Amino acid sequence: MTTTLDYLNQASASEFVEILHGIYEHSPWIPQRAAAQRPFASLAALKLAMQTVVNNAGEEQQLALILAHPELAGKAAIAGELTKESTGEQAQAGLTHCSAEEFSRLHQLNRDYKEKFGFPFIIAVKGPDGLGFTRQTIINTFTRRSKNQRADELAECLRQISRIAELRLNDLLDYRLEFGRSIMAWSETIAAWSDEENALTCAYMTDAHRKTANQLALWMKQAGMQVTIDAVGNVVGRYLSDKPDAKTLLTGSHYDTVCNGGKYDGREGILLPIAVVKYLHERGEKLPFHFEIIAFSEEEGVRFKSTFLGSNAIIGQFDLALLEKTDADGVTMLDALSAAGHDVATIPAIARNPADILGFVEVHIEQGPVLLGRDLPVGIVTSIAGSCRYLVELTGVASHAGTTPMDMRKDAAAAAAEIILYVEQRCAQVPSLVGTVGQLQVPNGSVNVIPGNCKLSLDIRAADDATRDAAVADIVQQINAICQRRQIAVNLNKTMSAPAAPCAPWLMQQLAAAAARAGVPVFELPSGAGHDAMALAKITDVAMLFTRCGNGGISHNPLETMTADDADISAQILLDFLRHFQVKPN
Amino acid sequence: MTTTLDYLNQASASEFVEILHGIYEHSPWIPQRAAAQRPFASLAALKLAMQTVVNNAGEEQQLALILAHPELAGKAAIAGELTKESTGEQAQAGLTHCSAEEFSRLHQLNRDYKEKFGFPFIIAVKGPDGLGFTRQTIINTFTRRSKNQRADELAECLRQISRIAELRLNDLLDYRLEFGRSIMAWSETIAAWSDEENALTCAYMTDAHRKTANQLALWMKQAGMQVTIDAVGNVVGRYLSDKPDAKTLLTGSHYDTVCNGGKYDGREGILLPIAVVKYLHERGEKLPFHFEIIAFSEEEGVRFKSTFLGSNAIIGQFDLALLEKTDADGVTMLDALSAAGHDVATIPAIARNPADILGFVEVHIEQGPVLLGRDLPVGIVTSIAGSCRYLVELTGVASHAGTTPMDMRKDAAAAAAEIILYVEQRCAQVPSLVGTVGQLQVPNGSVNVIPGNCKLSLDIRAADDATRDAAVADIVQQINAICQRRQIAVNLNKTMSAPAAPCAPWLMQQLAAAAARAGVPVFELPSGAGHDAMALAKITDVAMLFTRCGNGGISHNPLETMTADDADISAQILLDFLRHFQVKPN
Repeated sequence: MTTTLDYLNQASASEFVEILHGIYEHSPWIPQRAAAQRPFASLAALKLAMQTVVNNAGEEQQLALILAHPELAGKAAIAGELTKESTGEQAQAGLTHCSAEEFSRLHQLNRDYKEKFGFPFIIAVKGPDGLGFTRQTIINTFTRRSKNQRADELAECLRQISRIAELRLNDLLDYRLEFGRSIMAWSETIAAWSDEENALTCAYMTDAHRKTANQLALWMKQAGMQVTIDAVGNVVGRYLSDKPDAKTLLTGSHYDTVCNGGKYDGREGILLPIAVVKYLHERGEKLPFHFEIIAFSEEEGVRFKSTFLGSNAIIGQFDLALLEKTDADGVTMLDALSAAGHDVATIPAIARNPADILGFVEVHIEQGPVLLGRDLPVGIVTSIAGSCRYLVELTGVASHAGTTPMDMRKDAAAAAAEIILYVEQRCAQVPSLVGTVGQLQVPNGSVNVIPGNCKLSLDIRAADDATRDAAVADIVQQINAICQRRQIAVNLNKTMSAPAAPCAPWLMQQLAAAAARAGVPVFELPSGAGHDAMALAKITDVAMLFTRCGNGGISHNPLETMTADDADISAQILLDFLRHFQVKPN
Repeated sequence: MTTTLDYLNQASASEFVEILHGIYEHSPWIPQRAAAQRPFASLAALKLAMQTVVNNAGEEQQLALILAHPELAGKAAIAGELTKESTGEQAQAGLTHCSAEEFSRLHQLNRDYKEKFGFPFIIAVKGPDGLGFTRQTIINTFTRRSKNQRADELAECLRQISRIAELRLNDLLDYRLEFGRSIMAWSETIAAWSDEENALTCAYMTDAHRKTANQLALWMKQAGMQVTIDAVGNVVGRYLSDKPDAKTLLTGSHYDTVCNGGKYDGREGILLPIAVVKYLHERGEKLPFHFEIIAFSEEEGVRFKSTFLGSNAIIGQFDLALLEKTDADGVTMLDALSAAGHDVATIPAIARNPADILGFVEVHIEQGPVLLGRDLPVGIVTSIAGSCRYLVELTGVASHAGTTPMDMRKDAAAAAAEIILYVEQRCAQVPSLVGTVGQLQVPNGSVNVIPGNCKLSLDIRAADDATRDAAVADIVQQINAICQRRQIAVNLNKTMSAPAAPCAPWLMQQLAAAAARAGVPVFELPSGAGHDAMALAKITDVAMLFTRCGNGGISHNPLETMTADDADISAQILLDFLRHFQVKPN
């Protein structure tokens, strides 16, 4: 008989500790302290409680926990001298069967890591989907993390230990991740289709893009939905209510990617509701409203340098002039759509009637480090920040690096340096505010010439427009003051100013209630990234659920990752939200 | 009968003021105050004395002097209502015959300039060679200077007024610039030969380069020298002493240029001694030592990315392995030399025997703003700074500009910004120390991505190695501290470390004595730029004479400029130095 959560909730404290012995390596103090918090509303709540015990322990105890783990592919692991659990995991990952070269590399990494940090490297070798990392991925991760700073790496090791514990708990309770496994597997399937080798790039209307659309349509059909692919390539699946005059609740996200992007950005928000609908459909469970999943064909702007093509068509704001835009090969958008069999004449008909829509709820990987840093699987988005962007060109006087005394220079790069540090300092003053100089260049710079020119970009965002605009005003004023003082001519070119899209409180509350019922803390955060929900917010109320992003929160990058467990919790929350959904109160 | 300096020195004060009335526009107070400093040792001393009066006046009086000048191409100028002198100059520059478009542009510039600075724009329209600027050059200069800051522009207007005064004084005293005119004219001739249109680029062994070499050889011959072009393209002219066993005093500089460079960098140091030798030769005046002018074929490293090819051959340190280096088109240096008819087998024979050499004295345009800022026509170099160069690569974590809170970033560009400002601040602490970040780049930066990588160059120089090395040590330490704090990985690659080449005090003293005899203050300064003298310093004692550089001290740029008068003074000093030359005391 498998252990159940009910059984754990009702067991004596010592029995609880006994059963959970081995979940955290040689550390009974963790279940001991967690026991007092019973009963747990969910497995997620139990996991979080033990993780919190770890996080709240002193560093000495945390280090003891880390040191209780065997060295990766170390002598003990090879000799099978480890605890049963650990041996099993390292062996499953093939670490007992490394090549001589791999052993040598791992032992070198172990030595260097231990010397740098004072504790052994920990990685949950079963990985985010529980199916296991390859040895090469483990070595790459080890190499990458070896460059971290100690405080970050200590926190990462504790997170990996909690991930190991999570996987062991799943085994112990025979928890099958109804949704999470499918979401991860489907993500892998479509991530294999790319415009370039050894990277995931899925740009608008390429072969990979169209293949992805067809696969999404197939999965939607298999989940019991009515499916169409519209004239801009949006894959639209409708899970119809029994009430034919019902209104429609929308969800979805985009299936295109940036160049060399991640597997989950956008796609989680399509695959996750498909998994939920499939679950409902298999049980014959209907909703009192039509539920529509839109796989938006384009959000990132990679191919035609124009973003939100899919969602703008849905809200009736697709600019037909864009059809004349060309890609890097000179192919127009019109030709690309025609070649894919789309009739652009029908684009205007894609527009939804706002009166038919109940709202739009988008699930998305966070693409940032906030939830990871707080050890929370999900978050409720308060607002999608609007960006204000500038290109800044600074002109000083290019002069000889050797012959121009420091007090006679008009160095454009030095002015840029002051601007960068001011942006950083000013934007650190308000929590939801961020400011970035992402592009920075001294054109044709020479080692022996004082920069006469420097170009930089500015991107300022905040959850509300007033906060952002105040920061932009200060930054612009400071740029002018710096340049005045340094005798640098400045050209400020505003390239973008998009308003923030606040989420609808009534939708946020219902998402929060579902999260609470799932036993996870309700945590609100702004979204610094743009999302399809920004476009939808122009015609209906929107909300967003964020799923924790691993690997330090990295996104738009192959290292973007999330766990099957976090995807699963997110899906449970969406399912519960749908089951309890109440239309907007008047 | 023309006025002479003797006459001015002996005239009564009121007569002196009367004669010099009109040299400075409507400002008799200038000759009045200068009169007390008589007698003047030279015309240069008289010019400097009046200029010093201007510089020492209060700003109110300086502004009155500026306001006494007519607006450029203004109504008064057109109507001929100006003082005789001014009318003449503007009319000679063709400003009374502008096209409607040019008038409109000049009037707009006048309005904007006056509004920005509160005084009219002043330019000595006769230009650096006294032959006059084109209207287009005047408009370009006006446009460029309009972007300056007020303090710089006030100083520049006063300098232009003193230049106008200088030209008027030359006319008054019928001073013919024996050397300066030739040096300027010859510079123009060879500046017309370039590897590219509309720019002066004279790279090693190109057609323009060889044509220049042949012209230099011709001028040397015409000046009475024995001339050869050696196997690396150095043009060597020997002005032989009557004593066949005499040793040789060397001078010279390079005739190659950077891409889109200036007319005087290097070339002044060849043309000026040719003018001096021509003067001696025409008078049948011999020196008690052989005097050799070397026009070094290569110093800048443009074509083969290797510097000092000419001077290294002279000192016997030409690296024959360099012959295999290729240019951007894949042509080897060997092929380039062979195509020009040079026999590389004879390169080693170029090496001079140090025992035959008395020393090396190089005349060079300053390429910096120091003499200009002090209103001095020449300076004596104390030391040629050695560079220490690094390429720095910073690696943080590229992450999403919207989703990564400010306190969770590892921004490589922000670390670079701190480094740039530290270099600036540290190098400002010691007068002869300079530090430059000339290359700066976030590779493939995106407006919405936090820079994960940033590359920058460092160039640190000082007149002495101890000062420089102390700065480098501090900067390297600070780079590591900044990167440690910001969790940025840093790769520091030292690409160059050349020792400083101090000038020989016995040569400096003889140059200084000649400058003093010419009536100009003796001012010593380090050279931040590298020069052929650095190579020669490895086999003999060296010294350098710097000529003031106009246009803010800009060099390696088409705007590089010097006046015929400053070239003339420099030549007079070299001539006087040669006539008084004493071999190194034991």
